[in-house]
Amino acid sequence: MMKIAIDAMGGDNAPSAIVEGALDAHREEGIESVLVGEPERIEAELKRLGAPKDTFDIRAASQVIGMGESPTKSVKSKPDSSMRVALQLVKDDEAQAVFSAGDTGGAFATGLAVLQRMPGVQRPAIAALIPTLKGFSVMLDVGANLTPRAQHLFQFGVMGAVYTEEVFKKPAPTVGLLNVGGEDSKGTDVLKSVHEIFVKSDLNFVGNVEGSTIFQGGTDVIVCDGFAGNVALKVSESLSEMLTTLLREQIVGSMRSKIGYMFLQNGLKSMRQRTDYSEYGAAPLLGLGGICTIGHGRSNSKAVKNAIRTTASIVKVDLNAKIQTEIDKHISIQRSGDVGWRLWNQIRTGIFYEKVTEEEKKSGDEEDEGNPPS
Amino acid sequence: MMKIAIDAMGGDNAPSAIVEGALDAHREEGIESVLVGEPERIEAELKRLGAPKDTFDIRAASQVIGMGESPTKSVKSKPDSSMRVALQLVKDDEAQAVFSAGDTGGAFATGLAVLQRMPGVQRPAIAALIPTLKGFSVMLDVGANLTPRAQHLFQFGVMGAVYTEEVFKKPAPTVGLLNVGGEDSKGTDVLKSVHEIFVKSDLNFVGNVEGSTIFQGGTDVIVCDGFAGNVALKVSESLSEMLTTLLREQIVGSMRSKIGYMFLQNGLKSMRQRTDYSEYGAAPLLGLGGICTIGHGRSNSKAVKNAIRTTASIVKVDLNAKIQTEIDKHISIQRSGDVGWRLWNQIRTGIFYEKVTEEEKKSGDEEDEGNPPS
Repeated sequence: MMKIAIDAMGGDNAPSAIVEGALDAHREEGIESVLVGEPERIEAELKRLGAPKDTFDIRAASQVIGMGESPTKSVKSKPDSSMRVALQLVKDDEAQAVFSAGDTGGAFATGLAVLQRMPGVQRPAIAALIPTLKGFSVMLDVGANLTPRAQHLFQFGVMGAVYTEEVFKKPAPTVGLLNVGGEDSKGTDVLKSVHEIFVKSDLNFVGNVEGSTIFQGGTDVIVCDGFAGNVALKVSESLSEMLTTLLREQIVGSMRSKIGYMFLQNGLKSMRQRTDYSEYGAAPLLGLGGICTIGHGRSNSKAVKNAIRTTASIVKVDLNAKIQTEIDKHISIQRSGDVGWRLWNQIRTGIFYEKVTEEEKKSGDEEDEGNPPS
Repeated sequence: MMKIAIDAMGGDNAPSAIVEGALDAHREEGIESVLVGEPERIEAELKRLGAPKDTFDIRAASQVIGMGESPTKSVKSKPDSSMRVALQLVKDDEAQAVFSAGDTGGAFATGLAVLQRMPGVQRPAIAALIPTLKGFSVMLDVGANLTPRAQHLFQFGVMGAVYTEEVFKKPAPTVGLLNVGGEDSKGTDVLKSVHEIFVKSDLNFVGNVEGSTIFQGGTDVIVCDGFAGNVALKVSESLSEMLTTLLREQIVGSMRSKIGYMFLQNGLKSMRQRTDYSEYGAAPLLGLGGICTIGHGRSNSKAVKNAIRTTASIVKVDLNAKIQTEIDKHISIQRSGDVGWRLWNQIRTGIFYEKVTEEEKKSGDEEDEGNPPS
């Protein structure tokens, strides 16, 4: 039976919003969870919410990774953090996925330390949903890799496409590259390289996408480095809020507007829903050796419930096995198809054999399987 | 007398919107312009608009840099482009500034070729205005430098602060660094370096700014690389449009909403004005050896008029002289204050003297005056 390990202590509204969201997901969708954190506080919340005894397993964790804490430090200094204990449940096959609304950097670093990378994946990435006029797009990476290389970005595209196809049931999803112009020649050297790799690949690549066309929709997967993705995501969130505030100011300013607002209320509400993060909830860390999703730090119970539902649907489609298949396929295509790569492989296994393997042993962090020399 | 050279052929609505905007700026604000482009087409527009003969000087240019054309190629292949001829007028002191709504890359590359960099400035930058809840912020760079170094970013901050102080009359403007988190330790190595330089400087540096807080306002100058800045600017533009479209959809959908919209109209209009690029118009290319501003490719006549007014106000405050003073001051502070730099200087002028100067002659593009070794 599927169980989701939940970091009950992560997020601005933890543990109350987290426990409440988990309870709603259980009541409404029948999703089983293990709540990880301070047992007394978790039990107090469950009691407050009137949950029957033994609704959830509870696992004790004595530490919490705080918001804004140094991710690498927290991995080392907090061996008993709720995030780490929750991840360990997945590692030990006691749960099939983890959800946390805690610090993104902390979740990512701890996830990488406990679950490690999926074989062949060079850099895991955070995939977020952004609302568009036609529904939404998957954008990755939105913060884990600030300066990825071309091959990393290509793998983001592969993983994002599998995620979109499997979880949102969009066959042959379109993949675009976030850039400063539509022409192939635009952007940094890294973007020009990955553009070429995408064109050669069997992905449904639609070329460069500009910041100005993201919200028009039409591109299912938007690939970008973690810095630009993070800025784009946060800017769009913040702008929605600004526009709502401006509208409210206008409304408070005049009686005429107030009357108008009363009539418009339903329309505004439905508009807000389409751009509201709590409707979407969870962003998966794609490319880890286990399923791990994160939620907005400000998640309320509704956002947590939706996030848990999304996490369960990722487990149901066996996403990681499907990503693994595609990653393996692309590595083998690149290996067999690229003459340059074959030559390089010969050189590696020939003259420099010992030297290269020694270096490879050292650089566990820089595993570059299937990365043709550029 | 001040004259502004106008690229009459640049932009999606050229020459009609450009000529009309120039005429409105002349009629309403008394601003003198030289219109550059195909004389017959420009004269036809003036006639259509009922402008008296000899309202403007007209300079013939036989070529136009198209939207999306390769900037470096267009510099070489189009010696008689309207952009280039307009810039030459500034170079020859026949005009005090240039305005173009043509391709940003083309304008920037041609501007750099004709006007060159201001002495001491390593990378000129495009400074755009973005609307916030408290008014607006100046963001730079928004597309000229995709991968700037720390010292380049620092100079963006210096130039942006002078621009904000002189043109928008904000004393001691606050300067922030666009980053993926508020903590000092966040971001790429380049961002960490420039963070340190800003902290040591006498600028009113407020630390890192996240995409999520930009629209709250409060930071007068937001420094970023051209890639992230371009994405942020275009995302915000595009999102405003999406929200307006969504709102309109809701309104068309129900009678109740339609009535509401009628009452709200004034409020919505004033909200749109605050986020409408045509209210702001011009983005200066800061750090060139002459004043050059660019407008949105989609500029209508109102946007062009506002852009020309902004350009005139930049000329009036003698912005470039003020930027030059500040750039010189910071270079001399860094030179005298940094012991490491002094040592480096001694080594340069000592042992490696001849070699270094030879290299400096070659690398006109990589002028690194005042750049302490990092």
